[in-house]
This record gives sequence, C-alpha cells and structure tokens, in this order.
Amino acid sequence: MDNLLSRRSIRKYKVCPIEDSVLDYILSAGVRASNCGNMQLYSIIVTKDKNMKAKLLPLHFGQSMIMDAPVVLTICADINRFHKWCKVSNTEQGLDNFMFLNIATIDATICSQAIANAAESKGLGLCYLGTVNYNAQEIAEVLSLPKGVVPVCCLTMGYPDEQPQITERLPKEAVVHYEHYKDYSDKDIKRLYKQMEESPVNQAYVKENNKESLAQVFAEVRYAKKDNEEFSLKYKDFVNNNFLSKDNKL
Amino acid sequence: MDNLLSRRSIRKYKVCPIEDSVLDYILSAGVRASNCGNMQLYSIIVTKDKNMKAKLLPLHFGQSMIMDAPVVLTICADINRFHKWCKVSNTEQGLDNFMFLNIATIDATICSQAIANAAESKGLGLCYLGTVNYNAQEIAEVLSLPKGVVPVCCLTMGYPDEQPQITERLPKEAVVHYEHYKDYSDKDIKRLYKQMEESPVNQAYVKENNKESLAQVFAEVRYAKKDNEEFSLKYKDFVNNNFLSKDNKL
Repeated sequence: MDNLLSRRSIRKYKVCPIEDSVLDYILSAGVRASNCGNMQLYSIIVTKDKNMKAKLLPLHFGQSMIMDAPVVLTICADINRFHKWCKVSNTEQGLDNFMFLNIATIDATICSQAIANAAESKGLGLCYLGTVNYNAQEIAEVLSLPKGVVPVCCLTMGYPDEQPQITERLPKEAVVHYEHYKDYSDKDIKRLYKQMEESPVNQAYVKENNKESLAQVFAEVRYAKKDNEEFSLKYKDFVNNNFLSKDNKL
Repeated sequence: MDNLLSRRSIRKYKVCPIEDSVLDYILSAGVRASNCGNMQLYSIIVTKDKNMKAKLLPLHFGQSMIMDAPVVLTICADINRFHKWCKVSNTEQGLDNFMFLNIATIDATICSQAIANAAESKGLGLCYLGTVNYNAQEIAEVLSLPKGVVPVCCLTMGYPDEQPQITERLPKEAVVHYEHYKDYSDKDIKRLYKQMEESPVNQAYVKENNKESLAQVFAEVRYAKKDNEEFSLKYKDFVNNNFLSKDNKL
C-alpha cells in the first residue's frame, strides 16, 4: 500500500538488464488494462539496442536516461492494425478522426500507466519523457511507425540507482472536487500553492532562473507560450499527415 | 502479482459505500503518479449524489453503472488552475493550445489509471466509460466545469457484485514490437485475430448483429464512421470553445 503513495520518478538505473520474465509480466499487465471496446488501439515499441537508443537520444533532447535505462518503451496510439483487420474482413475502419485520435491516445496512456504500475510493483524505477509528444514525427521515423500510429508515452525503466526525495504535490483538495467543480478565488490559489512555492527546491529554482515567482519559471522559461505553440503546430501537422483522413484534418 | 493479469472490468457493484479512507487512499495514489513538469494539469470530480448521477446517466447513454456504483469519478484535463496561478503571479499561461490539450489529456489519464490500479489493489471493481468523450460538453455543464477543463476519463467503482469471465485479448506479439514497428501482412492479421474471432462470445456477437465478421460489427455497428465523425466534430467544437485560445483553434 505504501508503495503507491511513496513512488517517485527514477532517472538513474543500475547497469543490469531487466529479466525477460519481468518485462514479459509488465507488458502483459499493460495489455490486460481497460481499453475502448476491446479494440486495443495501441502498440508498444521496446527499445533495448544501443544504436536505436542513440538515434532516439537527440529527439528526447539528450536526456541521458534514454542511454542509461536498459529498456525504453514508446507506447503509441495505433489504428493501423485495426485498419488492416477491417481490410481482410471486407469492411473499412472509421477511426481516422479527431475523436479516435483522442480515444486511442487515452487507451495508449492507460496501457502505459498499467505498465508503470506493474513495473514499480516489481521493484523497477521509471520516468515518463514528455519529449515524445514534442518530437512525435521524428520518433515515428526512427521506430518505423506506419501511418495510423502516433507516439503517445515514453517510459525509461530499470532497477533504481538513486533514491531521490519525493516531489512536492499540491494538497489533494486542490485537485479533487465533490459533485461540482469548485472554482478557485485568488485567495484559494495562493493558499493551495503556498507549500509548493515555499519548498527550498522550488525557491532555488526561481532564483537560478532570475524570476519573481515559481509560476513565472513555468510560464516563461520551462513551458513558454511561443515554444508550446511551435510544438503544437508541428504535432498538428504530424497527425494531419499520419493519422487523420482527408475529410477529418484539423 | 496475479491481480494485475487477471483483472477484468466490473459493471455490477454491491450496495455498500466505499469507505472514506479507501477513497482517500486511491485519490492520493492518483495524485502521486507522474505528470508533466509537476504542473498537475488535471482535476478529479467525485460524484456520489443520486441527483447528480441521474443528470449524468443520459449523457452516458443510460449505462446503469452510473446509478449503481457508489462512486463515479470524472477525471479532467485542467489548465484553469494553472491559468489562475499564473494570473496571481504576474504572468500568463501558454497552455491553451493543441499540444497541451494532448499533454493534459495524457496526464489526466495517467492519474486515472493510477487511481484504477490503487482501487483494484483495495478489492474494488471498476469500469471505464468512453461516453465521457462523446458527451464532453454536456458532462462539463452538469459538473460546472469552467473554461480550460475537459472531461477525459470516467470511472465507475464499487465492491464487485459479479465475477465476469476475463475478456479475450490479442496475443502479446500483436501489440508489442521490438526495436522497429513490424507491420502486418494479411496473413499476420488473420493469425493474430484468429483466437479473438473464434471465441464463442464474439461469434454470438457477429450472429446477433447479422454480420459476416467481427471486424464488421466493430466498423459498421459499434464504431461506425458516420457516428464517430459526428462525435468528433462535437468534440472539436467543445475544445475550440472551452480550451483552445483564439489563435490556437482547430
């Protein structure tokens, strides 16, 4: 029980492989998780090969976990398999639209988090890499993804070689609402973010970025509007060209 | 260990509540899961009230789990809280774009599946309701979601009052690829879907729908192109009006 509440992302891994039986178990747990209508609109790409990792590395902005982790998983939304099944069954899929990009993204993520939970239950450590969304197109090329397959989540995993401090989270009352969404007054916001803002790690973070507040570091440095919108256009191009049908482009 | 591989969705629940301490635990596990940059771009709406459930029921197409489950969770992508935090911190968020709709959707789903795993570890049963995506706008109205908050996952949960058969899944080799995506020949597809197509439940399903193949039931009855595209346009309207900025509309 404690395990689920004390987990933290792990970015340093021991130099030892993940046993085949363990990898097989955690992938099976991913496949056993819920999915839309049992269509299994996802695929999991397992990367262990050093040359393949070296190709992925710059696309994940040089994050060293890619090279250090014995296993990198790229979990994708996938309507290609379903499309081919329909073709051999004398029918046609109708999933190449925005709704099913959303649904297949959700299903790939459910699979990914079921894998993450199973991995942690076996003593593995892991880290999600959000760069998978930023460079979806280039990652798709490296992994030979066909049309209809979109990278959604990336997990690096291995046996932990660090025990980092647990990361601060907002108090639960900040994210849980009962019956109706209770919108936040300025006063609520200040109270709910107080502990997060006062943590020494975050105060150092504000200082080293020469900002006045933690929110400014997030909104102006780490996730600046201009960068986000550039990645957003890139992602839109990718799904327009590689997932959505002619009549369903965004 | 066996728990993760033998799980199944549960649609019938005992008439007893989920203890507050258990609900608190599983929500905490959801909040402890990974998320993008620790921005926690999600909110969880807890529904227990009968009147609220009755309002949600038709939006989930009358699926009785909504009324029968002691707890219904609607997990949402949420940039509203972050937006308000930026406002009181003399800065502006830049997350109201397609990329962060995608990222917040992924984070809400990671949170949701961490909740699902924690719930099942405590003996609860649950079912995801995909209808949450179809009727996102109407559900947002019932739950008083402000701009910037989009329903992503819905979970009904309670103590199981059934032990259904475990659902067939494709063999693992159908969804796992090593190093490169290995695309499927017609022969591969036929082999990989054989067991799924031959299961008595699925054969009965084909017959009662007057179709020739299981794929036809999926593509022509359950997830017909025309319906999907209608929901897709509806969803696009919703996110255009309620999440994306003027310059970032789809």
